[in-house]
Amino acid sequence: MNASGIITPASQASVSESNRSRILKHLYHNGVSSRAQIAKALGLTPAAITKITARLIEAGVIEETGDFEGEKNRRSIGLNLDTARFHTIGIKFARSLVQIGVFDLCGNTLSLESLPTVYDNTINDTIAIIHDRITGLLDDDPSIVAIGMAVPGPYLRKVGRTAVVSSMQGWRKINFINEFSHAFRVPVFIEQDARAGALAHYLFDPAVHADDNIAYYLVGEGVGLGVIDNGRLINGAIGAATEIGHISIDVNGRPCDCGNYGCLERYCSTPAIHDMLISNGTVVPEAADMTHTDAVRALFDKANAGNDAARDMVRQIARYVGYGCVTIFNGFNPEHIIIGDIVAEAGPYFLREVRKTVAERAIPELNDTTSITLSTLPTDATVCGAAAVAVTQFLECPSVFFDVA
Amino acid sequence: MNASGIITPASQASVSESNRSRILKHLYHNGVSSRAQIAKALGLTPAAITKITARLIEAGVIEETGDFEGEKNRRSIGLNLDTARFHTIGIKFARSLVQIGVFDLCGNTLSLESLPTVYDNTINDTIAIIHDRITGLLDDDPSIVAIGMAVPGPYLRKVGRTAVVSSMQGWRKINFINEFSHAFRVPVFIEQDARAGALAHYLFDPAVHADDNIAYYLVGEGVGLGVIDNGRLINGAIGAATEIGHISIDVNGRPCDCGNYGCLERYCSTPAIHDMLISNGTVVPEAADMTHTDAVRALFDKANAGNDAARDMVRQIARYVGYGCVTIFNGFNPEHIIIGDIVAEAGPYFLREVRKTVAERAIPELNDTTSITLSTLPTDATVCGAAAVAVTQFLECPSVFFDVA
Repeated sequence: MNASGIITPASQASVSESNRSRILKHLYHNGVSSRAQIAKALGLTPAAITKITARLIEAGVIEETGDFEGEKNRRSIGLNLDTARFHTIGIKFARSLVQIGVFDLCGNTLSLESLPTVYDNTINDTIAIIHDRITGLLDDDPSIVAIGMAVPGPYLRKVGRTAVVSSMQGWRKINFINEFSHAFRVPVFIEQDARAGALAHYLFDPAVHADDNIAYYLVGEGVGLGVIDNGRLINGAIGAATEIGHISIDVNGRPCDCGNYGCLERYCSTPAIHDMLISNGTVVPEAADMTHTDAVRALFDKANAGNDAARDMVRQIARYVGYGCVTIFNGFNPEHIIIGDIVAEAGPYFLREVRKTVAERAIPELNDTTSITLSTLPTDATVCGAAAVAVTQFLECPSVFFDVA
Repeated sequence: MNASGIITPASQASVSESNRSRILKHLYHNGVSSRAQIAKALGLTPAAITKITARLIEAGVIEETGDFEGEKNRRSIGLNLDTARFHTIGIKFARSLVQIGVFDLCGNTLSLESLPTVYDNTINDTIAIIHDRITGLLDDDPSIVAIGMAVPGPYLRKVGRTAVVSSMQGWRKINFINEFSHAFRVPVFIEQDARAGALAHYLFDPAVHADDNIAYYLVGEGVGLGVIDNGRLINGAIGAATEIGHISIDVNGRPCDCGNYGCLERYCSTPAIHDMLISNGTVVPEAADMTHTDAVRALFDKANAGNDAARDMVRQIARYVGYGCVTIFNGFNPEHIIIGDIVAEAGPYFLREVRKTVAERAIPELNDTTSITLSTLPTDATVCGAAAVAVTQFLECPSVFFDVA
């Protein structure tokens, strides 16, 4: 797919695919519509609409709904993209956590499974389990049309490998493209995890509008960012843009596996918080024997139960997450920052502290025009975001999925 | 203009304008072309090309060149966009420095003037002089079709004001839209300075290709950044994205006028370097009586003449500029970073030190695939970039300039 935009010329074939895609997106975002409504909204001729929709109906992508009430109460035939009829698999890879879900085109969760905790020496077993599970799901559900995978960034999208995976380097050996892309009967799409999360909110979150500038700020086993700027994901030349976790907040700070010093990820990811808990020793005394996630959740439980030392520590974490927000303001100027993943489970007290730090340090005009919220999607934004990656491809490139040309 | 991209529907009118724009851009980037070549490259029907080009010829935007040698040595009639026939004015606002130039559509400099050094209490006089000069230039040259202005970021594009101007707050009182946008016979377009610089390299630099991911890193009276990601400028919701100068490199560092601490601009802009020179006292003893620019140039002269203390100071500045590059890598992952403005005058020794810092701290896969160079455009990238802003509009929205509909 060509994502390049304003200058690159388009061939006749890509113009047709682009018009098919625009029609599908219109139906996806607006629901049942008449041919006349679509023609008007997209600036296409009625003849073009008739031709393209005929092929989409024939290929089984969309259907006629019979009469419905259109503009000015006139009855007309509606066209519908049935978003419940097509399913996708979404898989989140997050170092020690792997989740697999099945979703419809609107991100409704049909099933969700967490695999056993992954350790550096069980990565190959995990890969084998994933193959098994996907094969099983595809056998059971013929409605599945695509698989989306969300992997830790920086993800080198042409190579198929992640460039740095702080705290679990074993994942760097996996080439996701070689491992998965031709292994199943449906196409597989791979995206950096936080970018998948941004797509999840873009497509599935009723609070977000399609023309918004949004940032999904993933604070979990890693710290990541996905930014949609004026309707388009920021990718960078090799897919490594918006890696907030490796932007330094202190050039004289803690060394990171990526080569840099003071990377944000070294201060507020769950492994960093886990380290804090272990060296503190008293807030969560049993932390050393817990997983990163369990230790961090134990901290949040204590803080929310009113333990002062725990609340101090949450405040400190929130300050670091807030510094990251200020960097996101000045780097990407989104309209909405949605914080998600494990650290967002800290809840309203945490969010208040994040906003306080931001109010102290952000340019006032940006602070006044940018919202910061916690993700409220019913399923973690990265795992349903993996599905959103697949849905985006389904809407962008229908000819990959159906014989519509 | 609607910059929103993938999801927003386009009206029939904007489809026509988009096709006109694509034809103009094709001629701009490829030179004389036949109608058949354009049709093939853009995936438009010959009938559409004939209709649109007839209107562009009638309106005087493009012209027929008579026979030229086309594909397979067949003679055909060529179409040409004469880039020397249309001129634009470019104006760079950089706190104490204001420059006004006239350029053709390819960025060739036809005239260039620097206004007297601006002080906080002479900003209004400077504005009056700018009005005068523009009026004079427009009277003398009927070929001028547009004016571009490049102003310090963060520039609030809908409001018309800059949000922070470290070291010269007086500029914040100027509303550029109210002051200039309806003052002349031609349209005026205003852009953040480093984004203008990125457009200059995108349009006028033979070393840059149209589908590249480039970043123009302005290190002068301010520190700014413009990023073209997959062919499109990153703007942010209110125009305040890519403000590298206000991204903190040390959350416990020097306070900045923007409210943040440790902003990059506080370490390597010319006012920051000037402060270093004054407090040092010996490297450039007369620094206190000089302008920022002159003091910094005196430092670079000494360093290039081999003075050890001066070279140490340049090395220190280069480290900070390098930290900024690492942030640009991890934030935006461009393919090329082009460093420009006054600090880039430090030359090859400085660039070597920047690259050394980057090699120590960048993710290896990014260091291997990203070039860092100094701007080599014959005129400062921001002032010819202001013209590039106008040229971009000329190519994007021809109907604003000519009766072509």
